Amino acid sequence: MSQIAVGILGATGIVGQRFVQLLADHPWFEVTAVAASERSVGQRYADACHWLLPTPMSERVAQLVVGPVEPGLDCRLLFSSLPANVATELEAQFAQAGYAVCSNASAHRMDPDVPLLIPEVNADHVALLEVQRARRGWRGWIATSANCSSTQLALALKPLHDAFGVRALHVTTLQAVSGAGYPGVPSLDILGNVVPYIRGEEEKMESEPLKMLGTLRDGRIVEAPFTISAQCNRVPVRDGHTECVSVRFEHPPDREALIDALASFRGPDAASELPSTPRQTIVVRDEPDRPQPVLDRDAGGGYTVSVGRIRPCPLLDYKFVVLGHNTLRGAAGGAIHNAELLAEEGWLA
Amino acid sequence: MSQIAVGILGATGIVGQRFVQLLADHPWFEVTAVAASERSVGQRYADACHWLLPTPMSERVAQLVVGPVEPGLDCRLLFSSLPANVATELEAQFAQAGYAVCSNASAHRMDPDVPLLIPEVNADHVALLEVQRARRGWRGWIATSANCSSTQLALALKPLHDAFGVRALHVTTLQAVSGAGYPGVPSLDILGNVVPYIRGEEEKMESEPLKMLGTLRDGRIVEAPFTISAQCNRVPVRDGHTECVSVRFEHPPDREALIDALASFRGPDAASELPSTPRQTIVVRDEPDRPQPVLDRDAGGGYTVSVGRIRPCPLLDYKFVVLGHNTLRGAAGGAIHNAELLAEEGWLA
Amino acid sequence: MSQIAVGILGATGIVGQRFVQLLADHPWFEVTAVAASERSVGQRYADACHWLLPTPMSERVAQLVVGPVEPGLDCRLLFSSLPANVATELEAQFAQAGYAVCSNASAHRMDPDVPLLIPEVNADHVALLEVQRARRGWRGWIATSANCSSTQLALALKPLHDAFGVRALHVTTLQAVSGAGYPGVPSLDILGNVVPYIRGEEEKMESEPLKMLGTLRDGRIVEAPFTISAQCNRVPVRDGHTECVSVRFEHPPDREALIDALASFRGPDAASELPSTPRQTIVVRDEPDRPQPVLDRDAGGGYTVSVGRIRPCPLLDYKFVVLGHNTLRGAAGGAIHNAELLAEEGWLA
Amino acid sequence: MSQIAVGILGATGIVGQRFVQLLADHPWFEVTAVAASERSVGQRYADACHWLLPTPMSERVAQLVVGPVEPGLDCRLLFSSLPANVATELEAQFAQAGYAVCSNASAHRMDPDVPLLIPEVNADHVALLEVQRARRGWRGWIATSANCSSTQLALALKPLHDAFGVRALHVTTLQAVSGAGYPGVPSLDILGNVVPYIRGEEEKMESEPLKMLGTLRDGRIVEAPFTISAQCNRVPVRDGHTECVSVRFEHPPDREALIDALASFRGPDAASELPSTPRQTIVVRDEPDRPQPVLDRDAGGGYTVSVGRIRPCPLLDYKFVVLGHNTLRGAAGGAIHNAELLAEEGWLA
Repeated sequence: MSQIAVGILGATGIVGQRFVQLLADHPWFEVTAVAASERSVGQRYADACHWLLPTPMSERVAQLVVGPVEPGLDCRLLFSSLPANVATELEAQFAQAGYAVCSNASAHRMDPDVPLLIPEVNADHVALLEVQRARRGWRGWIATSANCSSTQLALALKPLHDAFGVRALHVTTLQAVSGAGYPGVPSLDILGNVVPYIRGEEEKMESEPLKMLGTLRDGRIVEAPFTISAQCNRVPVRDGHTECVSVRFEHPPDREALIDALASFRGPDAASELPSTPRQTIVVRDEPDRPQPVLDRDAGGGYTVSVGRIRPCPLLDYKFVVLGHNTLRGAAGGAIHNAELLAEEGWLA
Repeated sequence: MSQIAVGILGATGIVGQRFVQLLADHPWFEVTAVAASERSVGQRYADACHWLLPTPMSERVAQLVVGPVEPGLDCRLLFSSLPANVATELEAQFAQAGYAVCSNASAHRMDPDVPLLIPEVNADHVALLEVQRARRGWRGWIATSANCSSTQLALALKPLHDAFGVRALHVTTLQAVSGAGYPGVPSLDILGNVVPYIRGEEEKMESEPLKMLGTLRDGRIVEAPFTISAQCNRVPVRDGHTECVSVRFEHPPDREALIDALASFRGPDAASELPSTPRQTIVVRDEPDRPQPVLDRDAGGGYTVSVGRIRPCPLLDYKFVVLGHNTLRGAAGGAIHNAELLAEEGWLA
Repeated sequence: MSQIAVGILGATGIVGQRFVQLLADHPWFEVTAVAASERSVGQRYADACHWLLPTPMSERVAQLVVGPVEPGLDCRLLFSSLPANVATELEAQFAQAGYAVCSNASAHRMDPDVPLLIPEVNADHVALLEVQRARRGWRGWIATSANCSSTQLALALKPLHDAFGVRALHVTTLQAVSGAGYPGVPSLDILGNVVPYIRGEEEKMESEPLKMLGTLRDGRIVEAPFTISAQCNRVPVRDGHTECVSVRFEHPPDREALIDALASFRGPDAASELPSTPRQTIVVRDEPDRPQPVLDRDAGGGYTVSVGRIRPCPLLDYKFVVLGHNTLRGAAGGAIHNAELLAEEGWLA
Repeated sequence: MSQIAVGILGATGIVGQRFVQLLADHPWFEVTAVAASERSVGQRYADACHWLLPTPMSERVAQLVVGPVEPGLDCRLLFSSLPANVATELEAQFAQAGYAVCSNASAHRMDPDVPLLIPEVNADHVALLEVQRARRGWRGWIATSANCSSTQLALALKPLHDAFGVRALHVTTLQAVSGAGYPGVPSLDILGNVVPYIRGEEEKMESEPLKMLGTLRDGRIVEAPFTISAQCNRVPVRDGHTECVSVRFEHPPDREALIDALASFRGPDAASELPSTPRQTIVVRDEPDRPQPVLDRDAGGGYTVSVGRIRPCPLLDYKFVVLGHNTLRGAAGGAIHNAELLAEEGWLA
C-alpha cells in the first residue's frame, strides 16, 4: 500500500519536531514537506531546526528543504502546529486549496463546524466535516486536536461521563514546560519554582472538554451539560501534565464501579485498530503515590492516560489524579491519531 | 529585661535548625538547651547537626552540648519539632514536669484542650490553656502550631470567613520538599517530577483550619462550619508552598471587597506588637502570574502570606492562589510567634 | 538454545532494578532468582521493591520470591549490585560455592586476579580468571565491571591510548543522582545545587581506568603508565554523567586524527557480536553544545558513549567532553555485557 | 554628605535589576536615571521591567521614567550592563561626554588602557585611567569589572599567586543560569540537564584573570605569566558558580600554608574601608562537601568567595573548589564595589 504524503506546518518547533519523530516509521504516512517561518525557508531541515529530542532526527526529513507556509506544498495531508495567531487564516487557506489539515493549533478548535477529535472519545464527530465542507465550500477540510490538558482530561472523563453523568468538575493542573514550546519558559522563571498561571489555558480547559464530550445532533455539537473550573500551574517538569480532579456525578458510583469504568474503557470500534491506539487507553494505578510524570508519562508509548489516587471527595463525589504525556498524546501524537482515524474513515482517499 | 531561657526538642532536624536560626537574635528568647535523639546526645550541637541553612550557625548554640529529650533541660520554654510518634508522650511529660511547650508537632494539635494557634487568627484560643491545666493537672502546658499548609490557608481565610462566611473550600497544594525534613524526599523521587501524595497531609488540611477558625465557647472550640477538600502534591521546590483555592461564601462579596478584606487584614491587638508579627499579614498581588515561591516566600521575612490570581470560580464563588513560607511562618517561625503571644499574655511569667 | 539461569544480588536497589529491566527480554539470560537483604526476604519481588523505572516490571520476575544473599540460589550466574561493605565476603562465598559472579560492586575490582572488564576495552583480561581460579581454588569465579565514571572514561580513552599514548589526564565530572542509588541523595542537598564531593569516587577514577587500559602480562595486569587527576561533583540530573577531560599524549595527533580514532573505534572481535554491544561504541558530536545528558544518554540504547567539544587545551594537548549513561553502560548494563562476553568465551558452559 | 547621582544602562535586565536592588540603600550613590533599549523608553521603570528578584523594587526607582541609552542622562556616574555588541560604542560616547562609566560589559575589558578592577586584587590598576584619559582625550572614563567566573577565580588566586607564584591552572566551571540574563537559558535546555558550553566564556576565563593579576608598569599591564585552561558548563542552579580548580605553583606550599594564605587574605588598604568590602574576602570551608551554591553563595552578603576541598593534585600541585555569587560579587556588585574604590580615590569628585 502506498503511503499518504504529509507535510508539517511549524516543523521546526517542539511540536513540529515531535511530528517528525513520530512519523519517522509511521505505517501510513510519509513526510514529504516541511514548512516554517520566513527565517527557516530555503534551509535543509537539519540546519533550520534546533533539534531537542533524544532520538536522532530522521535522515530523510533532515534532507528536506524547508518551504514557506503557503499552498504549493507537495503533500495530501498537513499537520499543523502553527502559532494560534497565524493559524486561523493560514489553515483556512490550505483547506480551501484542497489540503486535509489536522491541526494541533487552537485557532479553529471551537468553530462549530470543525471537529475537535480524540478517536477513543468522539470518533463520530468526524461527521462534522460534511457540515464544514457544505458551509465553507472548501475542497479540503480542517480537523483539530485539543489542548494537551484538555485531551487527557477528556479521555479520563469519557467513560465516567457515559456511565455516571458528570455534573461538576474542579481541576488543578501541574504542567510540564514542554507545553510552552521552545524557547518557551525561561529557566529563571521555573527552576525550583512554580508559576501559577498559563495564558489562555484555563479558558481552554473549561470549554474544550465540553465540546469533545458533547453530542452530535442535527449537524452541530450539543456541549456536555456540566461546569468545569480550572486552575493551571507550570512546574519544573520536562514532559507530562499532572491534573488533580474533583468531580460530581449525576449517578455517583461506588469506588469499584468507578475504577472498573476507567480500567475497562475501550473507545469505539473505529478507534480500536488505528496504529497509534494504545492497547490500554486508561491505566488505573493503585499505589498511593502514583501516577507521576517521570514514571507514567511514557505508558502506552505516551498515548495511555494514567489515573490514580481515586478516593471520595468531601465536597463533590470523587477525587483523583490524571496524568498524560503532553507532547505525545497531548499534541503531535493526538493530531496523528486523528489523521489515522480520518484515513480509516475515508477522508484521505 | 532578662531573656526567657528556651530549649529545642528535635534540634538537629531541619525545623530544629530553623528554630536555632530564628532565635539567634531574638529579643525575648535565648536558647540554653538543645535536645535530640540518642545518636546526638553528648555531642556539641555543631558536631551533631548537618547544618542545611545558608546563614551561619549561631556561635553560642554551636557550643551547646546536645541533651536527651527528657525533663531536666535547663530552660523555661520548649520548642518542639519532634516526630509525631514520639511527641505525644514526650511533650506531655515535659508539660507535666512544668515546662511550657510550644510544639510544631502534630501529636496534640487536635486535642480538645490544646490550643492550635496563629496569633493573628485566634489569639483568644489561648484561654484553652486554663481548661487544659484544670483537666490534666499539669504544672506546665502545651500549645501547638498547625501544619505548614494549614497555617497559610487559615491566615488567608481568616478575614474572608469573618466578613463573608466560608461555606465550602477546595484546595490543591504544590508543596516544597523542605516540608518533609531531612533527608526527607529522595532526589530520584522529585527531580523533574511531581509526587501527588503526602502522607497524612490532606487529613490535616481538611481538619486543622476548621479548629483554628472555630469559636471558643464554654471552654471548648466549636469548629468552623464548612467542608474542606484537599489534594496535596510534592513539587521540586526547596521552600514555599503554593495553594490553589476555590471557595464558596455565605455572602459572596464583589471582587473589590474580597481584595480589600485580605489586604486590610490586621490580627487582634494582642498580636500586633509581637516581635515576629509582620507589618502586613497578607499581601495581595495583582500581577497575573504571582505569587510564586521563589519571588514571594520571603515576603515579610517569611511571615507574610501572599495571595494572588483572585478571580471568579465558575463552580464555587472565587478562586485564588495562596503562598507562604513553609518552614518560617509554617513551622519554626509559627511556634516562636505563638510563644511570643503566650509570653505577652503572661503565660511565661 | 536454552537460556542461562541468572540470579540478582541486591535485586531491589536501583541497579538491581536495572538488571531486572535489562534482562526482561535478554536472548541468553533468564532471571530465576532474586536476593536482597533480610527485610525483603520471603516477599514477592513486586512487593519488596519500590520500583523506580518508567517501564513496567517484568511480570515473571514480579512473582519471584526474594531469597537471602547466600549460596542456595537456583541459578548458574549471579549479577551483584551489593553494597561494597558486604560484597567482599558474600561474593567470595558464592564464587567458592561454584557460582559465576559478574559484579558491579567495587569490592573486588582492584584485586590483582579479578578482571575489571569492558568488552570493547580489554576482553583479553578475561584470562585473569585462570589465575584467579588457580590461586583461590574456587569452583566459580568473580569478574567485575567498573565504577560508572571510570567506565565511560575508559571507553573514550581506549582508542586514544592505543593510537597516541595517554601521558596525563585531568577530569572533572558532573554526575547524575541515580549513581548514588535509592534513597541516595536527599533532594534538599541537590535541588538547584551542586555538591562538589562524592565519597570514594575520585580514588576510583584515578585508579580503575589504569587497570582497564593496562596490559595482561605473565598472569598479571601492568597498569597503563599515566596519571589521572579527578574532581567529582553531583549535579541535579537524573541519569547521565558528564566528564570534562583534558589529556596529554605521547604522540599528540591533529584534531582530525583524534576524531577519527574515536569515531572509528570498534572493540575486538570478541565483543563485536554480543547482544548488548552497540552498533557504535563512541559517537563524536560536532555541535558546539553537545553532548548533554538529556539528549545523549540514551544513544545506542544507553551503551554508546558520546564525545564532543574536541578542541586544543592550552595546558595539556586536548580537551573534550565525555557523556555516558551511568546506570545502563555504567552499571547494570556493563555487568550484563561482561557476562555476555564470558558466556561467549565459554566461561558459563 | 551629598550622594553621587548614578544612572544605570541596561536597567531592565537581570544585572540592571541587581544594580537597582544593591543601590537602594547605598550610602554614597543614588539612582537618578535608568536607561534601556527603545522598547522601554518613556515608561516608568516599574512598568518597563519584569522584576525577577525576591526583594521589592525600590519605590523611588520604580517611579523613574526610562530614558534612552545616550548622553543627556542626569547623573555623574553610570553603571553599565549593556550587551557587549552595543557597549563598545555607547560606553565610549558616554565617557567622551564626561561621564564616569563603571561597566560590567565585556566590551572594553581587555583594552590596554582600561582597568579591569577588583578592589581587593588590583586597586593600583586604577592608575590606568590617567593613561586612558591622556590617550583618548575623554572628559570622562571607563573602568570595567570582569566576567563573573573570572572574578571569583581571580579573588581566590590573588593571595596564592602573591605568595607562591601560580604557574599553570586548570578550571572547570558549573555555572548558574542567572549568568545568562533573562530570558536567557530556556528551561527545556537545562531542567535536569547540563550544557557543556557557554559562548565566549572559556576565552574570557583564560585571559581576564591574567590581566587582573598582572603588574602595572610604565602605564601598561604586564600580564601574569601563567597559562589557564578553562572548561565551562551550565547547570540547573539559579545563582552561584562552582569552579573546580587545579593549580601548579612556582613554590608549592604545604597545605597549611596554602589555607593560611587564603583565609588571612585582606586586600590593600584602599579596599578595606569601602562599603561593599566584606569582612572576609575568602572563607575556607573544611567540610568535605563544601562549598555549595545554595549554602555558600550568600556568604558576606554575596561578596565573599568560598574555597573548599583543598587537597593535593596528582597532576599539578593542588586542587580545590571555588564558589562565588555570580550576579552579586560577579556582576552588579563588582561594578558598584569598583565605583566605591574610584570614589574613594577621587575619581568621582
